[in-house]
Amino acid sequence: MPEFLNLTPPSEAMDLFMKSWSGPSAIQTVRISTENALGRVIAEDVKAPHPLPPFSRSTVDGYAVRAADTHGASASLPAYLDLIGEVLMGTTADLLVGSSQTAVVHTGGMIPPGADAVIMLEDTQQPHETEVEILKAVAVGENILVEGEDVKSGEIVIKRGTRLRAQEIGGLMALGYTKIDVAEKPRIAILSSGDEVVPPQEEPSPGEVRDINSYTLSALVERAGGAAVRHGIVADDRTALEQAARQAFHQNDIVVITAGSSVSSRDITVEILAELGEPGILVHGFAIKPGKPTILGIGDGKPLIGLPGNPVSALVVGGLILPPILRRSLGMHADQWDAQLPARLTVNLASQAGREDYQPVRLIQAENGILAEPVYGRSNLIFTLVRADGLVRIPAQANGLPAGEKVMVRLF
Amino acid sequence: MPEFLNLTPPSEAMDLFMKSWSGPSAIQTVRISTENALGRVIAEDVKAPHPLPPFSRSTVDGYAVRAADTHGASASLPAYLDLIGEVLMGTTADLLVGSSQTAVVHTGGMIPPGADAVIMLEDTQQPHETEVEILKAVAVGENILVEGEDVKSGEIVIKRGTRLRAQEIGGLMALGYTKIDVAEKPRIAILSSGDEVVPPQEEPSPGEVRDINSYTLSALVERAGGAAVRHGIVADDRTALEQAARQAFHQNDIVVITAGSSVSSRDITVEILAELGEPGILVHGFAIKPGKPTILGIGDGKPLIGLPGNPVSALVVGGLILPPILRRSLGMHADQWDAQLPARLTVNLASQAGREDYQPVRLIQAENGILAEPVYGRSNLIFTLVRADGLVRIPAQANGLPAGEKVMVRLF
Repeated sequence: MPEFLNLTPPSEAMDLFMKSWSGPSAIQTVRISTENALGRVIAEDVKAPHPLPPFSRSTVDGYAVRAADTHGASASLPAYLDLIGEVLMGTTADLLVGSSQTAVVHTGGMIPPGADAVIMLEDTQQPHETEVEILKAVAVGENILVEGEDVKSGEIVIKRGTRLRAQEIGGLMALGYTKIDVAEKPRIAILSSGDEVVPPQEEPSPGEVRDINSYTLSALVERAGGAAVRHGIVADDRTALEQAARQAFHQNDIVVITAGSSVSSRDITVEILAELGEPGILVHGFAIKPGKPTILGIGDGKPLIGLPGNPVSALVVGGLILPPILRRSLGMHADQWDAQLPARLTVNLASQAGREDYQPVRLIQAENGILAEPVYGRSNLIFTLVRADGLVRIPAQANGLPAGEKVMVRLF
Repeated sequence: MPEFLNLTPPSEAMDLFMKSWSGPSAIQTVRISTENALGRVIAEDVKAPHPLPPFSRSTVDGYAVRAADTHGASASLPAYLDLIGEVLMGTTADLLVGSSQTAVVHTGGMIPPGADAVIMLEDTQQPHETEVEILKAVAVGENILVEGEDVKSGEIVIKRGTRLRAQEIGGLMALGYTKIDVAEKPRIAILSSGDEVVPPQEEPSPGEVRDINSYTLSALVERAGGAAVRHGIVADDRTALEQAARQAFHQNDIVVITAGSSVSSRDITVEILAELGEPGILVHGFAIKPGKPTILGIGDGKPLIGLPGNPVSALVVGGLILPPILRRSLGMHADQWDAQLPARLTVNLASQAGREDYQPVRLIQAENGILAEPVYGRSNLIFTLVRADGLVRIPAQANGLPAGEKVMVRLF
């Protein structure tokens, strides 16, 4: 336990960071076609230029009437109305429905002036071409959607900072906004450091490993709405790493360095991040497993992030801290709902009080529900996560979790 | 209730469809760079070309030893070993650790031949440059990851049909696979029919509405890994719609038509889908709200889908049926985990027994947990879904759900 005493609980670390960093000084925007905007974050409030529905319309197929003309009508004592015409779909209703008159309307069609209700087709009979039998009374407003019932003219229907889903794309199209301003993707520099790291296309010599973190973190960044800019692999050399870090810092909005596995590499990383700008390092060391050697800082308004070199640690802790930082970079609303999947643990999970554990699990559909089975990998090799469907969080105050316990699994 | 008697429960409809459609005759593949493969579905089994770790390595900073040389060692009675050198990171260990000898190793570094355990730095002292005091005994294998412990040579580490997440991208890079075969995105034709529908860039006349469904369904398709091919808006005219549908059918892998709001438009849609190929329509009408007029069919091996013209219905029911159909088109594994969010209903939800209801809800973070508040919109306008975070499913056998009930919310 002592090793966690000087470490910061992850939520406290993120709170401190978020209090110290108010986001970019200005959100850069770019104008794009709405049809290509899925997943982008809108940078303007969207106001309804007209009410929706834009005119009162029928919700059924039937006859537009004056409700008063149907009072007391029943199957045994129908009301008789003069049929004066039909409101065709896609046209303006140029009929005027007067007293004792009616007109055919279709679902979604415009209510003709004079009418204040619609009677459903099945509640009528049409004995003659010019007459309709009304078999049921309707109230004023029945089967009608009133103009502006959904959206008033000038109402803000989509707030700036909203990530656009299918329905927002549809809503924008409904209002005729075929081009919109969205936040530019923040540029996240990713540097891998470590003497032992070689590019994936190279054959590693014994003692070397291929660069994984540059690519897993790029994928994380892309999924969270950022633009990953890979600055390559840098040797565990103070001068080389400092030069690479400064360049990355000047050219991008956020800097992420994954440290090499050696102690000296980790020391160099924190020193260099500290010198990039003010105020420098805020948190060095998270009370979390995996991911303990995580660093959070700010340099002249830009987030600075140091992640462990271990690929599992980098991906787990990166998955926790990068999305909220990217959301703020994009000018998104603070609230964010993370879906999880309830499951039951197949075995006891050990954990140390004082730190948060994130245990990769595989999900199994069993007869009595979904089971979460831990995936262990002593080396924390990336394939531990390939075999897993999600993570189970073991809270800091818990001494592990018992078999059978209901847990919420955060899917990757 | 009678109106639902002839309708098929959604799960039954999908089961019937999935039993009748075995997927595309062959998955078309395309070779792409692994770094661009996030979210794509891999079309080949990935085998490990070498074991992982590729050599036995240390999990700590310390000294490689022969475990036998440390037996009985303690702080009061240390063992003394000759320091013969250091295994530098990123290099092959060319030292041979003999009896009573030791060598410095770093975390992740190669275990030198002869050694069978590693003792942690903190359990040692180094009184002389050439001698190390061992203050604790270690067992054979301690602090060592054995070659192949994670992945054996030739083992299938990623199965074909897997959608690639960040960790699979990393795993492929770890093995040196910088290019891979992925499934081509299936082409989903989307046609909007309806006399009242105009393109979003046009100013609708009274009685007209802008096309929303082409764009919301395109977004759904893209998110599910398909390529949406918009075939535009077609009038409610049998000849025009048939011609457009045949062209869409010949040029694409799946055809989706959203019907216009009129009864005749819906009738034309089902007739045309039925004639595209064998066996034709499988299901006409789902016991679901919204989405009742949904059509599922197969024409000569291609899925044929008719969706309601109402934008909320199209998006809700499209969100249920398109993802599983696309997964099969992509050759994905059947199992799929859908994360949801538990919440409590703020009010009673009404529903009719015999049909499944999908109620849009807004989520609210309250002191005692997350609340789900229904979002109502009489017209089923798309902004109902813009205001919502997800859907609550009310099962067919339920007569609504009471306020306070714990529900699982499917986030959009």
